[in-house]
Amino acid sequence: MSFATATAVDSSEHPFAAAIHDGWDILGNANGGYLLAIGARAMALAAARPHPITVTAHYLAPGKPGPVTIDPQIMKAGRLLTTVRATLQNAEKPLIELLGSFGDKSTIEGPERIDASPPDLPPPEDCIRLKHDPKVGLPPRLFGRVDLRLHPDDARFFEGKPSGDPLIRGWLKLIDDEPMDLFGLIFATDAFPPTVFNAKLPVAWTPTVELTAHIRGVPEPGWLRCRFSTRFISGGMLEEDGELWDVSGRLVAQSRQLALAPLP
Amino acid sequence: MSFATATAVDSSEHPFAAAIHDGWDILGNANGGYLLAIGARAMALAAARPHPITVTAHYLAPGKPGPVTIDPQIMKAGRLLTTVRATLQNAEKPLIELLGSFGDKSTIEGPERIDASPPDLPPPEDCIRLKHDPKVGLPPRLFGRVDLRLHPDDARFFEGKPSGDPLIRGWLKLIDDEPMDLFGLIFATDAFPPTVFNAKLPVAWTPTVELTAHIRGVPEPGWLRCRFSTRFISGGMLEEDGELWDVSGRLVAQSRQLALAPLP
Repeated sequence: MSFATATAVDSSEHPFAAAIHDGWDILGNANGGYLLAIGARAMALAAARPHPITVTAHYLAPGKPGPVTIDPQIMKAGRLLTTVRATLQNAEKPLIELLGSFGDKSTIEGPERIDASPPDLPPPEDCIRLKHDPKVGLPPRLFGRVDLRLHPDDARFFEGKPSGDPLIRGWLKLIDDEPMDLFGLIFATDAFPPTVFNAKLPVAWTPTVELTAHIRGVPEPGWLRCRFSTRFISGGMLEEDGELWDVSGRLVAQSRQLALAPLP
Repeated sequence: MSFATATAVDSSEHPFAAAIHDGWDILGNANGGYLLAIGARAMALAAARPHPITVTAHYLAPGKPGPVTIDPQIMKAGRLLTTVRATLQNAEKPLIELLGSFGDKSTIEGPERIDASPPDLPPPEDCIRLKHDPKVGLPPRLFGRVDLRLHPDDARFFEGKPSGDPLIRGWLKLIDDEPMDLFGLIFATDAFPPTVFNAKLPVAWTPTVELTAHIRGVPEPGWLRCRFSTRFISGGMLEEDGELWDVSGRLVAQSRQLALAPLP
């Protein structure tokens, strides 16, 4: 099933209808970026503006496969941006609460100055592909939906050899060369293994409290070059900062999430 | 007027009541961090949890002095965190839309690992104080409410000599040594001059679209050491990343905002 189908939203009636599809999960719970992409697609439809500009989600409960609804409410429709809030919920309860602003990137202009570079990665064929193995059940099934190739220096936690640096770099594209739209970018901000897997701390689930994605450009078709890093693990929390660059070397998204740190 | 008074919230009736007080503005419009602090205080009262953990605001309209209401809605009251959304509005229209999670930091624990250091600053007495001059009208009146001292290397944009690096570092405390609570920290994430003032681009208003503050610790009494930087000015937008450290050298808040870039 394509990402477009897996995140499709029926906006013919309010609240809008969608579904959490099987296979977009980490050990049974739908991936947070996947849920956020469904919610953001619904909000953009309500705003009648094509591009998510900045979207925040707070994660309330794990998502299991099945029908969901999204009830976008327009808070302001401005000249450049429309601001929308929404709850994505299943029949029992809210799963994520969302707040975002939507616009048309072709109408927003300004000066250019970039003080950063894409992560330095070996070519995809020399990186480590995370590929779901149905016999073993690991890596999680999500990695059957994306082609994700980790920098070899960041991929040894699987062998019990974390790098010691809470950093994860790699390439990502959707399988079958499905084009990556801006909702795919939102998904990609949460599709990599947690940085903390390389931190020489207990490897455990780091539940996302909040994730904010800034969509900074429309990617050229092809691989995304991604970098996720953490500098502050303290007070039971950690942040994870993401940078997503397209194949032409342009930053197309920035993300930051706040997650609960793994307990020893 | 103290910060506590200027951000006080009356939660005896729903929606809660508060006021935008005179003097917390940049050229007539209430500072964005100040509005966010009022909203977050209302949300924490509704959650009945003392500490903001992560709060996001989308800015809809400028705030002028006068009464406002805040209507916090609890989206989930969990074991560790309560998630709340709210609209802060005046009699005419919504000013900011908020989404946040609240908890009690003393109940959230985990491992510690910090891969960063506080900004290197000369002592406050050797930094450049931004102090409102009623005769000139600049710097803005907000700088009568805080004691803000810029790193001399980052303060020369006032003389028309931007450093060339979109970086602003400095010390901050509330005037009259008012203790800085966590809502004060939220305010402080948006209290410094824009980084873009040092970028050798046109100096112009950079309206905040969205600001997210992560509260990472309870500060020791005294000065905050702050660092704001921008790496990506592109597509009509820029991000501004903030780090706020307390006097003991602990990170107490991280922030990121997305703003519209100044037009030439």
